[in-house]
Amino acid sequence: MKHEFIIRPATERQRSRSYESDDHERGACEWCEYALVITLATILLIGVSALTVFWVFYYREGYAWADDLPDKQFNLHPTLMVAGFITFSGFSVLLYRICRCFRRIYVKLLHAIFHALAFPCIVIGFLAVLDYHNKKGINNFYSLHSWIGFVAMGLFGIQYAVGFFSFLLLLICNKGTAGFRASLVPIHAAFGILTFVLGVCACLTGLTEKALFSIGVERYSGMVDEGIIINAIGVACIAILAVVMYILSRNKFRTPESRGQHIRASVDL
Amino acid sequence: MKHEFIIRPATERQRSRSYESDDHERGACEWCEYALVITLATILLIGVSALTVFWVFYYREGYAWADDLPDKQFNLHPTLMVAGFITFSGFSVLLYRICRCFRRIYVKLLHAIFHALAFPCIVIGFLAVLDYHNKKGINNFYSLHSWIGFVAMGLFGIQYAVGFFSFLLLLICNKGTAGFRASLVPIHAAFGILTFVLGVCACLTGLTEKALFSIGVERYSGMVDEGIIINAIGVACIAILAVVMYILSRNKFRTPESRGQHIRASVDL
Repeated sequence: MKHEFIIRPATERQRSRSYESDDHERGACEWCEYALVITLATILLIGVSALTVFWVFYYREGYAWADDLPDKQFNLHPTLMVAGFITFSGFSVLLYRICRCFRRIYVKLLHAIFHALAFPCIVIGFLAVLDYHNKKGINNFYSLHSWIGFVAMGLFGIQYAVGFFSFLLLLICNKGTAGFRASLVPIHAAFGILTFVLGVCACLTGLTEKALFSIGVERYSGMVDEGIIINAIGVACIAILAVVMYILSRNKFRTPESRGQHIRASVDL
Repeated sequence: MKHEFIIRPATERQRSRSYESDDHERGACEWCEYALVITLATILLIGVSALTVFWVFYYREGYAWADDLPDKQFNLHPTLMVAGFITFSGFSVLLYRICRCFRRIYVKLLHAIFHALAFPCIVIGFLAVLDYHNKKGINNFYSLHSWIGFVAMGLFGIQYAVGFFSFLLLLICNKGTAGFRASLVPIHAAFGILTFVLGVCACLTGLTEKALFSIGVERYSGMVDEGIIINAIGVACIAILAVVMYILSRNKFRTPESRGQHIRASVDL
């Protein structure tokens, strides 16, 4: 019996060591995945806007806002919409989900600030194309692209107003509004991801329109460089959508304190 | 003290009655939502294919597969792709999630059968446009639409092969493969929803291309009836995407036995 007592603690120690090393390895793997996904998302989110700016300067003669340069004014539309709906909105969604070490209120403020950066981009991007259409005498809101974009902009505005009012202003009465705010989280999250998906769809249809309008069917089907650049912007948008969906789906990318609280919200994404 | 003992059971009975009625009301609400969402999804999924067939017959002179009628042959492409990627795939995803009363193996078979219906639609839809391009001397795979469609088709094929092999064939050795199959569920589900989203994106960019090619920029911007019909098909695709995402996000729409088992899979959507 004594012999047994001597052996057991040794095997238990070995076992616990082996479990610890398993946990350690799993933790390292998780952090590796976390770092990899964040790096990929950052490269794609900055890359898609950089590629759009490059395309406009290299192939479309840059930007302007003048009566005699409507085509250069139009160039503001794709650039600002990609920046607003993809880059800033994408960063806002990701930061809300992956900022593990910050206090909750700072994460919320970062989420609001990045959406606040997206807001003027979307408004000016919309005014740029509206003014361009009016100057050229083209009808507004006739295409599938414009219909999708209109719904995406409307949802973005409503989401921003509701989010700002409910999750920041109502903090004045923290305890009294906790139940209401908690019940609003899954709705805000679900409509948020829908707005993001609609933003991507609007970008894809807009890029298709622009390629056919500006490059022309003949040259586009001839695989000219500009066509491939426009396609690459679209592919980047889709890659971002895939990465964002992946990050939203992974429970372990949530901030630790919200992981327990908002399990329903996680399921609702 | 005795007086207290007489009163307590009465209030407890009242309380339990009130809880029961609450539960009953909540259950009725859930079933009402369940019925409403299924009806809406069914109308949209059948409606989008019906609208596409109507559009082709009313505005594009119907279907054919002949060397002297390439435009009629092309019409098979949007119809079959909408049927394959939206209607049949949509029903397949929804049936897997909402068939509460069937045995699990029947639900899996239904899921496989609806995807098996989608498969020839996608293959023939692809061959129709490939042959049309070759007949007309147009390059293949130059547009953003074709790139998205190519990835969507590739993913669909891989998903079907992996799903058929892993979740049906491996049932021959049920117990031995249970762990492997369970670990594959969240991956299959995540790539499944990505394939569906890519299918919708391909439809939207394809509809935009078709509107500009066939109706022409001038007439499309003049809000002709055909343009509105094409836009309506696109809007229906987006509405379906929204409904599917909503159903996938609601844990209570899961089959009761899979609700507990695959909580990770639910989070992974």
